[in-house]
Amino acid sequence: MKNFVIGIDVGGTNVGFGVINPGGRIVARTSLVTKSFVRHKTKLINAVAVCVKDLMRENKLDRKDCLGIGIGLPGLIDPQKGVVKFLPNIPGWRNVPLKAILQKQLKVPVFLENDVNMITLGEWKFGAGQGFKNIICITLGTGVGAGLILDDALYRGEGYVAGEIGHMPLNEVGPRCSCGGQGCFERYVGNALLEQEARKVFKRKDMRLEEVSALAAKGDKRALRFWKQTGERVGNGLVGPVNLLNPTHIVVGGGVSKSHRFLFPSIRSTIKARAMSVQGKMVKIVRAKLGNDAGIVGAKVLVEQVRQGT
Amino acid sequence: MKNFVIGIDVGGTNVGFGVINPGGRIVARTSLVTKSFVRHKTKLINAVAVCVKDLMRENKLDRKDCLGIGIGLPGLIDPQKGVVKFLPNIPGWRNVPLKAILQKQLKVPVFLENDVNMITLGEWKFGAGQGFKNIICITLGTGVGAGLILDDALYRGEGYVAGEIGHMPLNEVGPRCSCGGQGCFERYVGNALLEQEARKVFKRKDMRLEEVSALAAKGDKRALRFWKQTGERVGNGLVGPVNLLNPTHIVVGGGVSKSHRFLFPSIRSTIKARAMSVQGKMVKIVRAKLGNDAGIVGAKVLVEQVRQGT
Repeated sequence: MKNFVIGIDVGGTNVGFGVINPGGRIVARTSLVTKSFVRHKTKLINAVAVCVKDLMRENKLDRKDCLGIGIGLPGLIDPQKGVVKFLPNIPGWRNVPLKAILQKQLKVPVFLENDVNMITLGEWKFGAGQGFKNIICITLGTGVGAGLILDDALYRGEGYVAGEIGHMPLNEVGPRCSCGGQGCFERYVGNALLEQEARKVFKRKDMRLEEVSALAAKGDKRALRFWKQTGERVGNGLVGPVNLLNPTHIVVGGGVSKSHRFLFPSIRSTIKARAMSVQGKMVKIVRAKLGNDAGIVGAKVLVEQVRQGT
Repeated sequence: MKNFVIGIDVGGTNVGFGVINPGGRIVARTSLVTKSFVRHKTKLINAVAVCVKDLMRENKLDRKDCLGIGIGLPGLIDPQKGVVKFLPNIPGWRNVPLKAILQKQLKVPVFLENDVNMITLGEWKFGAGQGFKNIICITLGTGVGAGLILDDALYRGEGYVAGEIGHMPLNEVGPRCSCGGQGCFERYVGNALLEQEARKVFKRKDMRLEEVSALAAKGDKRALRFWKQTGERVGNGLVGPVNLLNPTHIVVGGGVSKSHRFLFPSIRSTIKARAMSVQGKMVKIVRAKLGNDAGIVGAKVLVEQVRQGT
């Protein structure tokens, strides 16, 4: 196959690999358990290189036909220099010139990007954001992050840390956040907090969000109210970015987005009620389409953009 | 003079006109009282055209040497079509094809832009934002607005209404805002609210913000505390945009920025304390440099960008 891209999505527990064909489809996959290599940076890098080589050999792919490898990582990345500056959840990663290291081993161009930005690139070109120029791609999970497509390009910010929507304050006085701030959006709608709330509401210490969704699907009133209130909170947190950035779409991904049937209506009505009129009427709340594949498919967008010099 | 630009800044009370030389300096000026023409849209447009003609004749300028006229207006502008969609504070302006009307009368290319964006363009290229790629240019006045320079270009948003920083909520529950929202930043730091606060603090119904500044300059403790608290509020409102957009500079203009000596230190310390570490360390709070000229000088940036097709 000519002109394929390899996408790699590095997570705290798992590393996913995919071969992406020129049409944007993942045609071969493999994965690696990150945990086994935590605190062994060099071993993890070597294992990634071995996985790439195996994936190419097994699928009879020639490195001359590879446009490049795009790697999404959960932390602060310098995509210009190809350096991993810091990964908050994987110890030992500080100022690692990963691009140079892997290029030497694999002899294929390697490009790095923050994982949320990579997901955003994927959803923008191949998922729910296709054809749109101004979108916010938000992930609701343990953390709450976002990627910004502004004027038809990924906006990274001066220090490559733009998009921290989860750390925009929802209130001036609020729960302390690990980021050093107070009242951060994430402290209201991150999974940990939602689960805690659900346990209170249902008076069960092992209550999980999946169950709340299952109950909502059966029409359980407490569960429906839980998702409605969560949607209001999410909506409140989105009013600011909507008024500031005037996007056409907010693409919502992450575990909680599975409950979109119960969650999205109240996100929408909250934004409609509280955002400015032009911004509020223009913005659509849509569900992410690519799920866990977004981060891998995004690699294709990244590699092609860098190679085309855009 | 070859290659000059005419900048026009339309305000609720005044229309300012300036001839800008190729170096970016205003070399001739005139003005018009808007009030006399309120509810007389066509008369105002005609008066603007007469002012431009007079300005050119008096300064012996030939329209063939004019790169264009840039007009900043306080409201919703479609810069692509050259249409004034809506001016909240000047009645009767809805969907006015001002570009076409003036071009016909003046036979010079005319370009329209929102006034806050025009100020932002001016400060970016000729003022406090010179040389920087990612800045937020905020105006603290009766209203609180901002222009966004992102990746070295003015970001307007899909419907040309981006930058509404004054309508980002500071709290989920807060004072109702005329925009339809609740707890908007502007409702805490707009001039009206600040003056109201000052009157409470000083127990004087005619207390004005200029006086609070004068008192602060003399070391008055209540005045110093007033500005410190105002700075904290402003800082709280900027934490979200700083975390989301990761700019290098926030350029602060508007009347209140005259009290920068008392105001800025507490804006800075609040952002340092509450923003994320990379974003917080990177961002500088600086005072706007061009004052009321920013909106006129910005016209040069606008006209040249459009003519160069960027």
